[in-house]
Amino acid sequence: MGGDGAPDIVVAGLAIAAERHPGARFLLVGDEPRLLPLLARHKRAAGACTIRHTAEVIAGDLKPTAALRLRGASMRLAIDAVAGGEAAGVVSAGNTGALLALAKIVIKSLPGIDRPAMAAIGPSARGDVVMLDLGANVLCDVRNLVEFAVMGDVFARTVLGLTAPTIGLLNVGSEELKGDERIRQAAEVLKVSHLSGQFHGFVEGHDIAAGTTDVIVTDGFTGNVALKTGEGALKLMGQMLREVFSSSLAARIGYLLARPGLERLREWLDPRRYNGAVMLGLGGVVVKSHGGTDAQGFAHAVDVAMDMVVHRFNDGIRDGLAKIVELQPGMGPKNGSSDGQGSVGGSRLAGAR
Amino acid sequence: MGGDGAPDIVVAGLAIAAERHPGARFLLVGDEPRLLPLLARHKRAAGACTIRHTAEVIAGDLKPTAALRLRGASMRLAIDAVAGGEAAGVVSAGNTGALLALAKIVIKSLPGIDRPAMAAIGPSARGDVVMLDLGANVLCDVRNLVEFAVMGDVFARTVLGLTAPTIGLLNVGSEELKGDERIRQAAEVLKVSHLSGQFHGFVEGHDIAAGTTDVIVTDGFTGNVALKTGEGALKLMGQMLREVFSSSLAARIGYLLARPGLERLREWLDPRRYNGAVMLGLGGVVVKSHGGTDAQGFAHAVDVAMDMVVHRFNDGIRDGLAKIVELQPGMGPKNGSSDGQGSVGGSRLAGAR
Repeated sequence: MGGDGAPDIVVAGLAIAAERHPGARFLLVGDEPRLLPLLARHKRAAGACTIRHTAEVIAGDLKPTAALRLRGASMRLAIDAVAGGEAAGVVSAGNTGALLALAKIVIKSLPGIDRPAMAAIGPSARGDVVMLDLGANVLCDVRNLVEFAVMGDVFARTVLGLTAPTIGLLNVGSEELKGDERIRQAAEVLKVSHLSGQFHGFVEGHDIAAGTTDVIVTDGFTGNVALKTGEGALKLMGQMLREVFSSSLAARIGYLLARPGLERLREWLDPRRYNGAVMLGLGGVVVKSHGGTDAQGFAHAVDVAMDMVVHRFNDGIRDGLAKIVELQPGMGPKNGSSDGQGSVGGSRLAGAR
Repeated sequence: MGGDGAPDIVVAGLAIAAERHPGARFLLVGDEPRLLPLLARHKRAAGACTIRHTAEVIAGDLKPTAALRLRGASMRLAIDAVAGGEAAGVVSAGNTGALLALAKIVIKSLPGIDRPAMAAIGPSARGDVVMLDLGANVLCDVRNLVEFAVMGDVFARTVLGLTAPTIGLLNVGSEELKGDERIRQAAEVLKVSHLSGQFHGFVEGHDIAAGTTDVIVTDGFTGNVALKTGEGALKLMGQMLREVFSSSLAARIGYLLARPGLERLREWLDPRRYNGAVMLGLGGVVVKSHGGTDAQGFAHAVDVAMDMVVHRFNDGIRDGLAKIVELQPGMGPKNGSSDGQGSVGGSRLAGAR
């Protein structure tokens, strides 16, 4: 029930996903009287679907703390289904902060993971690139960054199908004074870890679009700013190009002549192709669709969730984590993190040990 | 003597600048036997120029701490000239870290400024935008962010000619959990400051290219990543467009038809037009030209320095700072900052009080 075009685009996206994944079963959580007529248009989806009715919805602007109290909301029931083992994963186009907070508290982090992270895939000059964290953790320590690298590696293997993805730690230029102490320490750990062969070292902002590495690891503040800055720059360029191609009759004809290539470029950069930010490090698969996407974009978010379930993403995380913990026995859970909301998952994990 | 094409492009850039600023005098510091024949080609520049000979050069990859020991290097002598009042400002295409460290130690910060910052101008959908800090300070506190806002305001007035530039604090989305505590506190200070009417509040990564505000304030780590991420995205798009327009005969003809508009777009995004990162908060004007720029780009960096000198940039900073200090008497200099190199300027300032 979340996102700008819900529930219509969710059901339409589900219909596309049901065609692509004939073996899958879907649990559709939301307002049944609204969902039924939409589902009636899509025979295969209707056959693959169970509706769980609830009229309660978490609004897009509701604070996570308030969202936690709505125990009958559609997002909550979907997450409950994952926590209870009924569903392997959840896909939502709703309130990101609420989804993250609910997932951390209800589904919980994987044992050994201090902080779950948000990851997404984007375009680069050398193929698709995974970046994390994109905003789940504003402040990150050495352990978090190392765990992000472990999770980014497994994610790139699982979803991009790479056998040995290269990994870069986002930093400022060697030319400038220096990076943050935590980033340098994380690099030292990665250099001697099982990822040492894949670890490229530090990368800078321009390396994201250049595709210097397959995985970019950074804290949630920097990752969120970098993601949105890059998207903003591409959007600006797109607007300017539209202006150029409508600025004269000759330019319009020019557009028509160059159209096949320009259309390929537009498709390549299509945000729908990259829709589906993933929350990594939880006991189930959690995918956040952009709230403003359409049916194709939502279906892509379902594809990402499917990939993670089918390729047993979390088994890979457990393996990678075991190797890092072996190497760094000091990397146990810790207390006293000062990140407020962000520490919910971490402190629960610490308490559980 | 710094940068990829030195000293040739520096002299060629100086020649352009000398034409544009007929009243200006230039002190050219470097290897005289190499400079004289280059200068001989440009009559007006030669007439406006004094050469100060030194054969010692700070290499592009030299660490700032090592650069500080080269007391006869061209960059050092140029900075000495500013510190001694011989020159109003310095423009260098050399080692950024060395320039920053030397400027902080030799020219010193303006009284009341805890940390100088690097600022630059870039394109946006709504006109040119100033962003700072771009890498001078990896870690920033509330006071630093507030001072960056004060300096960004004066810089946008001085160089962009705006009467009341709008100011945004870079943060992560309200949708995500929350921003950093320091950023929220800086916002509280700005809301009640003399900048309250210009302070737009928080902005996100996509607001940089959108031009939501004229000035974007952030810490040096985030600013450096954002700048390079945006540049990288635009560069990727440029590469892809070149591929599109050479992918078929029709596309080539299409390019020719749309060329006037595409050329305008290219000129608008031309990095040379935005060359010249400025170190704000020092007792003199310090401009860093990109090391890979050409004569036009270097001349633009000289233009920026000229603007700052002619429009008495530092008087504006003093005024703005006085208003902020009045408001927040607690914002005096502090000790014990933990940022290593970055604290050189700050601790000297504290010691001087």
